[in-house]
Amino acid sequence: MTDQAKASMRLRVDMNNMFDEYVGAGNGLTEAEINELIPALSTAHETLQANRGTGMTGWMTMPYEQEEIVADILDAAEEIKNNFDAFVVLGIGGSALGPTAIQFALNHMRWNELPKEKRNGFPKLYVEDNVDPERLEALFDVIDLKKTAFNVISKSGATSETMSQFLIIRDRLMKEVGDDWARHIYATTDAARGNLIKIVKQEGMRMFVIPDGVGGRFSEICPVGLLPAAVCGIDIRQMLAGCAYMDELCKVNDIEKNPAMLGAAAKYAAMMKGRNISVMMPYVDSLKYMADWYAQLWAESLGKKFDREGNEVRTGQTPVKSLGVTDQHSQVQLYAEGPHDKFITFIGVDNYRTVMPIPEGYDDIPDVSFLGGHTQNELIAAEQTATEFALLKQNQMNRTITLPEVNAFTVGELMYYFMMETAYCGELLNIDAYNQPGVEEGKNATYALLGRPGYEEKRAEIEARPAKNPRWII
Amino acid sequence: MTDQAKASMRLRVDMNNMFDEYVGAGNGLTEAEINELIPALSTAHETLQANRGTGMTGWMTMPYEQEEIVADILDAAEEIKNNFDAFVVLGIGGSALGPTAIQFALNHMRWNELPKEKRNGFPKLYVEDNVDPERLEALFDVIDLKKTAFNVISKSGATSETMSQFLIIRDRLMKEVGDDWARHIYATTDAARGNLIKIVKQEGMRMFVIPDGVGGRFSEICPVGLLPAAVCGIDIRQMLAGCAYMDELCKVNDIEKNPAMLGAAAKYAAMMKGRNISVMMPYVDSLKYMADWYAQLWAESLGKKFDREGNEVRTGQTPVKSLGVTDQHSQVQLYAEGPHDKFITFIGVDNYRTVMPIPEGYDDIPDVSFLGGHTQNELIAAEQTATEFALLKQNQMNRTITLPEVNAFTVGELMYYFMMETAYCGELLNIDAYNQPGVEEGKNATYALLGRPGYEEKRAEIEARPAKNPRWII
Repeated sequence: MTDQAKASMRLRVDMNNMFDEYVGAGNGLTEAEINELIPALSTAHETLQANRGTGMTGWMTMPYEQEEIVADILDAAEEIKNNFDAFVVLGIGGSALGPTAIQFALNHMRWNELPKEKRNGFPKLYVEDNVDPERLEALFDVIDLKKTAFNVISKSGATSETMSQFLIIRDRLMKEVGDDWARHIYATTDAARGNLIKIVKQEGMRMFVIPDGVGGRFSEICPVGLLPAAVCGIDIRQMLAGCAYMDELCKVNDIEKNPAMLGAAAKYAAMMKGRNISVMMPYVDSLKYMADWYAQLWAESLGKKFDREGNEVRTGQTPVKSLGVTDQHSQVQLYAEGPHDKFITFIGVDNYRTVMPIPEGYDDIPDVSFLGGHTQNELIAAEQTATEFALLKQNQMNRTITLPEVNAFTVGELMYYFMMETAYCGELLNIDAYNQPGVEEGKNATYALLGRPGYEEKRAEIEARPAKNPRWII
Repeated sequence: MTDQAKASMRLRVDMNNMFDEYVGAGNGLTEAEINELIPALSTAHETLQANRGTGMTGWMTMPYEQEEIVADILDAAEEIKNNFDAFVVLGIGGSALGPTAIQFALNHMRWNELPKEKRNGFPKLYVEDNVDPERLEALFDVIDLKKTAFNVISKSGATSETMSQFLIIRDRLMKEVGDDWARHIYATTDAARGNLIKIVKQEGMRMFVIPDGVGGRFSEICPVGLLPAAVCGIDIRQMLAGCAYMDELCKVNDIEKNPAMLGAAAKYAAMMKGRNISVMMPYVDSLKYMADWYAQLWAESLGKKFDREGNEVRTGQTPVKSLGVTDQHSQVQLYAEGPHDKFITFIGVDNYRTVMPIPEGYDDIPDVSFLGGHTQNELIAAEQTATEFALLKQNQMNRTITLPEVNAFTVGELMYYFMMETAYCGELLNIDAYNQPGVEEGKNATYALLGRPGYEEKRAEIEARPAKNPRWII
């Protein structure tokens, strides 16, 4: 892609509606508030850039340096295309949210219902991120094990959900295809440590490496996300090019040029003003699951009890997934008339990938006939603008991110934009944006409840909870 | 069903973890706070029961009095089964959220991927609730118009989203099947007023009535929801029986016996303590979309700017959809360590509809081998308890609703339970829980932007907005 072509695909972030001038005096931010944050942001920027690739910022190197890995992934994708009709991701958290978001954004919305030729020969994709027994049963009803490949994704190989799925599938594959079962498994895991790499070596499975410094919620742009995308024919080089383009934009220590820096400043300032809810509302059906992916990134990164000095701070803003226009008939009543406790990120596009004209009809019914001669493209765009306008009138903060169109490049830009914004906010909040200590307690309690040796004390603690008051159970 | 059979299917609501004794002193509710609400709740109860069926509480009569309508719906369902392979709901808001929730809860999770015989001959189901042009295009790629029936749902026939879909589909049907096109359409609308009934009469379509007093978010238990459910073979009589059973439980003016009364009291008290977020987290994959349905019910009903006396109050709590165990790896970090600004409703079941054993394996890897010999049923149940335990340790309020199993009866109970809880909360907040004035502004702005005659002033207002500051656009 030429520089000009890239620039024509640049996403735009419009923060105006976060400010008093648009959302009403006292309801938004002021220029002075943003300016006050510049020194801290500037330091955050220098820190981030200086540490690029170290510690848990390995994701910042992912837009680059992956040529060989990409070639290897494309090789495997070709092999999978030639041998299998379905590809099942066994993963949870980022390992599932990223692949789902990308697949729905960039491939046909009803991919698995298309005949093989309309999928250009690529396999069906299933992403299995729960351990509900009914869910796995339903999967087995629609796949043919002989023609299915599985992608087991776990950095540690200690993810109970994924490893339980693996044990079940391994057993079924052994029964169905015999000794060749391991040829149906592609592992994505740590290169050296953990349990899954041991299994990979023992069974002789094909594997891809989760690099150091790339946590689950940043993993879509490493082999975790790239393999499932490539397997379904998505142009992963363009995805990475989009990431690299955004990374370049974010290398500038200037809030008037660096979109993630401005985004982080406004979001942080909004949090400080009591906005504890962050709604993401794409007016683009294909970006629906991008809101789920973002929800993990934002919630797990910033939801922290302690700051870096160990002070109890309990930071974090609750992400809410919404969809335009659909949720105008579900959530917008609350967004408009409810408390001033949230801000909304609209996502729009300049061009949808198809045009859907609305035919004329029923001249005697104005509520219906006015639609004729327009397109659904015009209708959805008008509704987006109308909702923005209506929320402003109710003094509700919002911003709009616009993609020229949805493609592998712009989606790469968008994801990387959110990662950078999150990283800056982590710095401003002075918390570790890359750990998740709050999930350990539940993990250990699960071990205890399943009777795993070594967790007897935890089990005793669970059982020692006060007896429940029958008055509060009906 | 005998009374005993019904009682064995009764859902249980456990509110203990909303209280100080469990969630930690100062972090939850006290018995005294609940007792203080009893007089107001008692009045709310008497008002609701006295007005049953009047105004916008027509939904309270839906569990009863629908014998003839149900018979008519089952007739149509049989006709559709015999003539069509696919059934497409054209509706938005409750018209889409209810049918989606019920279908995913009660039918196979991958219904549309099953061959016809595994669907017992029932049609595929599509629910189209957006006007993104790519979405409708994707639908046309997978259906055969000749073998598809459409259910146009709109009380007024003035829902732009649904009516634009109707115009497009009418045009395509005319081209594809000719004069018979109207035989492919089933309308669900008002019996006398509005535009759609005019069209029904003009075109000679089959239609079902949306009764008075049943708003979109309460419409799942009227023909809006019952027709799509019946078309896919769901036992709608059992659904209504479940509603009726819950309605009976909620007829008692006693907070120790009426589960919705206790639920409303605790939720209202939590709101008054600054909990502005309400998370619903089913540990039941099939109830995933129930959280979406609930999100509309809760958000649109309680998100209000004015109380009944016209005082500006800006009430409302933001619903968040979550899924156990999936979102343990996405949202639970925030729920555990983040601010004390939310409460969580877990939904569990006593029995899943299948058992998924986890085979033994890898004795040398304790992180994996401890899973062998258990079932996924045990694993998901342990994780639910573990998450509840972990959140309690972090002083996060939560409650658990348990269904004996997921079936038409218990899902009817659950939906009706939430409707009652919402109605009580509306009374406690002294707001109109049944209107949605906040969506009018956006609707009118859409008309204006599309150049509809009569909306010139609104258009001028939109265009008169202050120019955007280029500093805030990157």
